[in-house]
Amino acid sequence: MNFTPVGNGQSHEGYCLIKSVEKKLTAKGVPYLDLVLADNEGEISAKLWDYKETPGNSYVKFDFVKVRGSYVPFNDTMQFRVERIRHVLPEDGAVIEDYVPSACLPGKVMLEEIEKTVASFCDNELKLLVSKVIDEYREKLLYWPAAKNLHHAVRSGLLMHTLSILRLAKSVCEIYRFVNYDLLCAGAILHDIAKIDELSVSETGIAGEYTIKGNLLGHLVMGAVTIDKIGRENNISEETLMLVEHMLISHHGTPEFGAAKLPMFIEAELLSQLDLMDARLYEMHHAVSAVDEGTFTPRQWALENRNLYNHGKSGSDEVNLVDNTTTKED
Amino acid sequence: MNFTPVGNGQSHEGYCLIKSVEKKLTAKGVPYLDLVLADNEGEISAKLWDYKETPGNSYVKFDFVKVRGSYVPFNDTMQFRVERIRHVLPEDGAVIEDYVPSACLPGKVMLEEIEKTVASFCDNELKLLVSKVIDEYREKLLYWPAAKNLHHAVRSGLLMHTLSILRLAKSVCEIYRFVNYDLLCAGAILHDIAKIDELSVSETGIAGEYTIKGNLLGHLVMGAVTIDKIGRENNISEETLMLVEHMLISHHGTPEFGAAKLPMFIEAELLSQLDLMDARLYEMHHAVSAVDEGTFTPRQWALENRNLYNHGKSGSDEVNLVDNTTTKED
Amino acid sequence: MNFTPVGNGQSHEGYCLIKSVEKKLTAKGVPYLDLVLADNEGEISAKLWDYKETPGNSYVKFDFVKVRGSYVPFNDTMQFRVERIRHVLPEDGAVIEDYVPSACLPGKVMLEEIEKTVASFCDNELKLLVSKVIDEYREKLLYWPAAKNLHHAVRSGLLMHTLSILRLAKSVCEIYRFVNYDLLCAGAILHDIAKIDELSVSETGIAGEYTIKGNLLGHLVMGAVTIDKIGRENNISEETLMLVEHMLISHHGTPEFGAAKLPMFIEAELLSQLDLMDARLYEMHHAVSAVDEGTFTPRQWALENRNLYNHGKSGSDEVNLVDNTTTKED
Amino acid sequence: MNFTPVGNGQSHEGYCLIKSVEKKLTAKGVPYLDLVLADNEGEISAKLWDYKETPGNSYVKFDFVKVRGSYVPFNDTMQFRVERIRHVLPEDGAVIEDYVPSACLPGKVMLEEIEKTVASFCDNELKLLVSKVIDEYREKLLYWPAAKNLHHAVRSGLLMHTLSILRLAKSVCEIYRFVNYDLLCAGAILHDIAKIDELSVSETGIAGEYTIKGNLLGHLVMGAVTIDKIGRENNISEETLMLVEHMLISHHGTPEFGAAKLPMFIEAELLSQLDLMDARLYEMHHAVSAVDEGTFTPRQWALENRNLYNHGKSGSDEVNLVDNTTTKED
Amino acid sequence: MNFTPVGNGQSHEGYCLIKSVEKKLTAKGVPYLDLVLADNEGEISAKLWDYKETPGNSYVKFDFVKVRGSYVPFNDTMQFRVERIRHVLPEDGAVIEDYVPSACLPGKVMLEEIEKTVASFCDNELKLLVSKVIDEYREKLLYWPAAKNLHHAVRSGLLMHTLSILRLAKSVCEIYRFVNYDLLCAGAILHDIAKIDELSVSETGIAGEYTIKGNLLGHLVMGAVTIDKIGRENNISEETLMLVEHMLISHHGTPEFGAAKLPMFIEAELLSQLDLMDARLYEMHHAVSAVDEGTFTPRQWALENRNLYNHGKSGSDEVNLVDNTTTKED
Amino acid sequence: MNFTPVGNGQSHEGYCLIKSVEKKLTAKGVPYLDLVLADNEGEISAKLWDYKETPGNSYVKFDFVKVRGSYVPFNDTMQFRVERIRHVLPEDGAVIEDYVPSACLPGKVMLEEIEKTVASFCDNELKLLVSKVIDEYREKLLYWPAAKNLHHAVRSGLLMHTLSILRLAKSVCEIYRFVNYDLLCAGAILHDIAKIDELSVSETGIAGEYTIKGNLLGHLVMGAVTIDKIGRENNISEETLMLVEHMLISHHGTPEFGAAKLPMFIEAELLSQLDLMDARLYEMHHAVSAVDEGTFTPRQWALENRNLYNHGKSGSDEVNLVDNTTTKED
Repeated sequence: MNFTPVGNGQSHEGYCLIKSVEKKLTAKGVPYLDLVLADNEGEISAKLWDYKETPGNSYVKFDFVKVRGSYVPFNDTMQFRVERIRHVLPEDGAVIEDYVPSACLPGKVMLEEIEKTVASFCDNELKLLVSKVIDEYREKLLYWPAAKNLHHAVRSGLLMHTLSILRLAKSVCEIYRFVNYDLLCAGAILHDIAKIDELSVSETGIAGEYTIKGNLLGHLVMGAVTIDKIGRENNISEETLMLVEHMLISHHGTPEFGAAKLPMFIEAELLSQLDLMDARLYEMHHAVSAVDEGTFTPRQWALENRNLYNHGKSGSDEVNLVDNTTTKED
Repeated sequence: MNFTPVGNGQSHEGYCLIKSVEKKLTAKGVPYLDLVLADNEGEISAKLWDYKETPGNSYVKFDFVKVRGSYVPFNDTMQFRVERIRHVLPEDGAVIEDYVPSACLPGKVMLEEIEKTVASFCDNELKLLVSKVIDEYREKLLYWPAAKNLHHAVRSGLLMHTLSILRLAKSVCEIYRFVNYDLLCAGAILHDIAKIDELSVSETGIAGEYTIKGNLLGHLVMGAVTIDKIGRENNISEETLMLVEHMLISHHGTPEFGAAKLPMFIEAELLSQLDLMDARLYEMHHAVSAVDEGTFTPRQWALENRNLYNHGKSGSDEVNLVDNTTTKED
Repeated sequence: MNFTPVGNGQSHEGYCLIKSVEKKLTAKGVPYLDLVLADNEGEISAKLWDYKETPGNSYVKFDFVKVRGSYVPFNDTMQFRVERIRHVLPEDGAVIEDYVPSACLPGKVMLEEIEKTVASFCDNELKLLVSKVIDEYREKLLYWPAAKNLHHAVRSGLLMHTLSILRLAKSVCEIYRFVNYDLLCAGAILHDIAKIDELSVSETGIAGEYTIKGNLLGHLVMGAVTIDKIGRENNISEETLMLVEHMLISHHGTPEFGAAKLPMFIEAELLSQLDLMDARLYEMHHAVSAVDEGTFTPRQWALENRNLYNHGKSGSDEVNLVDNTTTKED
Repeated sequence: MNFTPVGNGQSHEGYCLIKSVEKKLTAKGVPYLDLVLADNEGEISAKLWDYKETPGNSYVKFDFVKVRGSYVPFNDTMQFRVERIRHVLPEDGAVIEDYVPSACLPGKVMLEEIEKTVASFCDNELKLLVSKVIDEYREKLLYWPAAKNLHHAVRSGLLMHTLSILRLAKSVCEIYRFVNYDLLCAGAILHDIAKIDELSVSETGIAGEYTIKGNLLGHLVMGAVTIDKIGRENNISEETLMLVEHMLISHHGTPEFGAAKLPMFIEAELLSQLDLMDARLYEMHHAVSAVDEGTFTPRQWALENRNLYNHGKSGSDEVNLVDNTTTKED
Repeated sequence: MNFTPVGNGQSHEGYCLIKSVEKKLTAKGVPYLDLVLADNEGEISAKLWDYKETPGNSYVKFDFVKVRGSYVPFNDTMQFRVERIRHVLPEDGAVIEDYVPSACLPGKVMLEEIEKTVASFCDNELKLLVSKVIDEYREKLLYWPAAKNLHHAVRSGLLMHTLSILRLAKSVCEIYRFVNYDLLCAGAILHDIAKIDELSVSETGIAGEYTIKGNLLGHLVMGAVTIDKIGRENNISEETLMLVEHMLISHHGTPEFGAAKLPMFIEAELLSQLDLMDARLYEMHHAVSAVDEGTFTPRQWALENRNLYNHGKSGSDEVNLVDNTTTKED
Repeated sequence: MNFTPVGNGQSHEGYCLIKSVEKKLTAKGVPYLDLVLADNEGEISAKLWDYKETPGNSYVKFDFVKVRGSYVPFNDTMQFRVERIRHVLPEDGAVIEDYVPSACLPGKVMLEEIEKTVASFCDNELKLLVSKVIDEYREKLLYWPAAKNLHHAVRSGLLMHTLSILRLAKSVCEIYRFVNYDLLCAGAILHDIAKIDELSVSETGIAGEYTIKGNLLGHLVMGAVTIDKIGRENNISEETLMLVEHMLISHHGTPEFGAAKLPMFIEAELLSQLDLMDARLYEMHHAVSAVDEGTFTPRQWALENRNLYNHGKSGSDEVNLVDNTTTKED
């Protein structure tokens, strides 16, 4: 936790997220709050004793708060005894991105890079279609995560994932000139857009649960339905919609991973491969970073039960699109 | 072929379908038509010598024609030498259903039974939605086949398949009262509706090819998109659309057979089972009917390579919903 | 637990099943019984202190008993302190069906419906064969469960499952007239008969364990062996036995679910589909009923890990063949 | 064909099997026989012109005949023009084993070795059971093949396969002393006994087709039913029958190869492994023997599409239990 | 065939490859050569009548020859009647690359780009190891194809495939900075090097057959053995060899495609993905280019039986690394 | 634990292995050792209070020690309070084989039998190659286990497994004379040799972990690389190495179990089958021995989740190659 000492150093103060909160009673019947506080460095169990609920002093999951308190030993670990707590105010100047696991670039910067690419499309229908979809989802797109699990999902993770694939897509187009640049880039930008309807996410950018519709239809089919609707509203041709919708419903590559159709043209195939590549790289980097050099990770369920090897020869540490919030457990 | 003798019995005359037609030249350079003529009893190779193409004397695949000619031996088989040919006229009183493999009930009768069921729905949203969809597709629905292959696909086959499942669905609802009758019946009626956009079919009710969109999106996803569009135009609630769309995209049961999601509520599961049951029964009855009592069919590719046994103890032969156009090869 | 208050209401009294019983010693060396008592509403941990074992005061698993005692808090839950306990006597008038999860219809009623169907068979060999088999197993058939797990298995569950499939079978025969009614119904009635040799079950109708033979041979092969034996004793023809035995050994549909052969004629295929349908409906209804409307169940292992959705739109609640003993956990 | 020249060498004479026979008419309407003649060296197309059918001059598939005739070129190959033909007579002294692909040891010799093993059993029940089964099938057992296809199936092939496994079983028992010798040997001897009811075979020892019962029940289940019947007639205990029946229904190892249960004790597991080993060795030796040293066979469908390598370093050529009828195609 | 008319235009002349050659006899016993001639435009059946074999006039498969002759109709097609034939001489100035399907860049140019990358490695061990391996295989590397089938395999195809992956690898390293550039590039360059020992290839760069060793060990394991040998000869550390060998034996990604281990670190995973991407792109581009815009290809066996769609919107036609030798069949 | 009472019987003394050891502090800060002690009869938790570490009094995992102490109750179980502990000295005369689960024959005896077989080879290359490999690994071979898990792995387990397969191989060669004895035996002896590089094992013969190289390359590929190296050093022919290396990389039978190639000649196929047979027999015997006669084992994960039946009819108990260290849990 990035709390800093205040006063004589017994107390600490900082900003954090409420990861869970429950109102309980002590043995003597006095109400208190049982909390888990979290920031991008970790989390800590906390108690707020003698709690009196008031409209201005009421907290729910994912609230962004300022706390002061002190660390007290509890069983084999430490606990945080909250002395003061309040919601973060605009005048605090604290930005949520600094306290939740976030993409390495701000949402705005990433979206700008994406929109610059759209502006460069030769195909006017694709340019219009993609722009309209971005407009429809712009606000949420800026902070939406790409997945539900805390470990794979970070604030603005959806943009981070989208931008990585878009950059890969452009490189591939330079190497294989027969690939349709506009079509592949449009697919890269739109492929996961329906995750915004599939997941319920608080304004902190942390995913809660799948929505009912997300469970029953999934972001592949929901994406196709959405593209169809926005497309028709903007008079996009049947053919363009058909190609884009095919890319969306096939981008998981094989039926066992949810694709309703196998990719049936080159850009659809490429999109599914680049999607897999970015996801795998993120997960492998994440897993490998958490173990010592020269050792193996535990079996990775999502990677066919592989034990991954940390050979300790990573490339440069400069900023890049995969977040580096993972810290080795010590 | 159900051609009948005319005159001294050397010539035969009848109605039939043109299954294929090609204009060729004899060795001497004289044009002739090389035809395959078909009706619901079989097909025959035919020639029309000394052919002169005129606007009124021009033929394409799937045309419904009246022919007169004579049978001539050719290699190990017989060929039909066409003496006269013309398109069928309204005054002929010949109906196409009598000459192509067709469902055992007329399309109109089947659609009536279906619409009577819709009228009985308690759920007004489902009643409205299903009615609107039927209205949109009414004309084609009357004769559309359910599949592309001649053997599995007959004129009005789509209605036949739909009605069988609907009847099964009603029986099931009587036995298990917790099943939602309206929802299951709506699913049964709508589940394959997008086959009308997936296949290209002539007015004879014989399927030609999959459409491009049919190949790239498939009738499951296309069905969901269509329901969504018609649903919104008629102010159907999000929840109802979500349930119906889920039934459509999951009705093939498992991803390997094209389902975008596994069925996730009881009516969706039932729909996928009843769909399979009707398809299997049709195919098994078709295969078994073609071999002698006490023998096995060849391996059936579409039925996990099974050899099926004809035990010769079929039930009554009265009219029922599976066509009996199959004739034993002798 | 359906215990009712007696006296001043501190004590409660009722009938129940002993789900488990163990004789233990207190720290001071005094013997007591550690029990779990159960009825069709739930179960409770119980203690009988100062227990003296006598011939008339000795208890084993699945005994049907009358108890009196009081509820005492224990850890986070309640425990039942037994004051009196004895075996149920005929004069109590308590019937076991009211205290264990049971089929919604009495065994006798269900068997009657089944035998009426047998009486209607046209095929005399099948009529004789099925009657003889029912006679052989009649007594156990009345209360036997269909499976081992408490949740899927209820008193008279085997008849309940058999009757559901038989009803479905009859509906199917009405829709598809080429199906052999007698053969399909015979298969429906006999398909699981060897479960009576496969499971060991107390007279309460609750399954204990698989028998050794059940483990090593399974009810599919055991069924075929039994039919063969009873068939020969009654001079049933080779052909009839062969058809029935095939239906029995193939009724799990595919090898991975234990079928020794794929179903090779229409009635065998139908039987395996109806068996699956009834099993799935039971399990799905059971799982969905246990969660709130608008929410999903946990992943269902036996249903390919699906989360099932309770859409809250079940059909009528009238009596039907799937039991409704499931109560929402609160 | 092992025909030998007679007279001036233009004519050839010998014994052979009729592999197929059809009565046809020449263009002039004269009847003739169109035959395929075969012996263990190969087969040849043959004609018998000017054929007059008489009771003593009538031939069916698998007849064992003596023919004389001459080779005549026909298209790219040779044909045999039959001059004389008649059924083989006892006084000819020709034995069928010399003219059809046969096991390398006479059936009698092999059965003797098997019965000597049975006589050595300590377990009297198993000794009695196996003896009774052999008695029941003795005659057919002597010449029955183990499979339908000509290439994998030879006269007395069933005994050859049984004896190989029995010999392997004995070796294994010497190496692993905890294996039950009597049980494993009993399983080895009985495991395929129901192939005698599963296949229809002429007296030449060449398999024709699967029987209907063979198709519908298979030799695994049929074996269990038979053992059960013979066992009960001879008062064999329930336990012994259960163990033997389990070995029979599980000996194909996994459900995908037809096992109704996975092998659940050591002898059952061993039996299934030894069965596979003998079958694989036969097929691999057969395939490899047909290609030149230093080359690969074509893909072997029954061996997971492997190309097998003939390394040219086979062991000794002395007589052993796998037949060596395969001759390199040149 | 790119033969050009000579003289009065009745005769044609050009350079080509002998794809097959067989010496035969005419009906009158006169020897002639039955040939198939091929160049990068197609192939043609050819005859050389009255052939007299002499040391200087002898031809084998894959010889590069100059021919003159004339086209003569034969059945439904054309045949080439050879009038003159001889081996190509240096003074002809004809280069084989112009007459066989070849990579779009000369081998030398591609190898230069690869070696420039090696020169830029920071890791001296990898630089040394890769250089030594290239030196060992340099000559063959320049023209070796990447596969056996004519359609997927072209002269210098191995370098083409290697260079494509290398270019992709570099792009990926720019986007994800934690990837080890030297390791991934070394893997890209070495991954298929053992194809040079796995395939037997003539100097034309056309693959004949798999070698025996290629069949029995495969280029993955052979690659590891080779790297180990060359590595030890050059004192490369155990660790470096281990990492490179792992990349080689895992580069087919999953066991079913021949990987002896799943990729266990990031560069190994990336290599296997890039390998698949380049192979798929080549095959899809090849298949799609052969059908008309707006239509589908036949099912592609090597691409999970997909029908691929030619949407007619390919990117620029400028030179790139996938060959464009495919010509639409007309 | 095979500790024996000393003195008045309150104390016990014996030799054992340290299975785990951790230095901890009591609440009062006094250091003590928290140990798990093990021998071939079982294991026990132990404490050494008031521990003072000195060079001669320092312990690590797998140390072979002599201890004295007393049993004290702890929670529901017993603990051993160590009074004295020291490393075993040569003069103690205690041999490690008596205290860790070990093969039933001494390593030396087993290796002798193996080397006698090698000496009998006719093929001089194989004789030389196998001898050289044994020489290289002789010391470790004597005590190396065959696997990592304590239950499946015993001291000298690698030799035990090798010898069992070798004995099976010889039996098979007697029954099928076309099998190449030298090649199959060489494969049997060498197939797992690289396990010595794949596992890290203490001198007690108990496996610790997989080595990094073992994880990344596996003993199949490592074996091929090793054979290649030793083979070249001894001028073994390419062909012999190729055959042996193929046997090594294919001996797991199918890709899903790690085989880099399917076995492609008879000896390779046999080796993979015998390897599986010995492994399965070991595991099944081990599992079955641990439950009562007439009961089933729990599901065996490594045996396709089978419940195995103990029929109580094991063969003779004489010494044989599968260890009998398993003791029924009571």
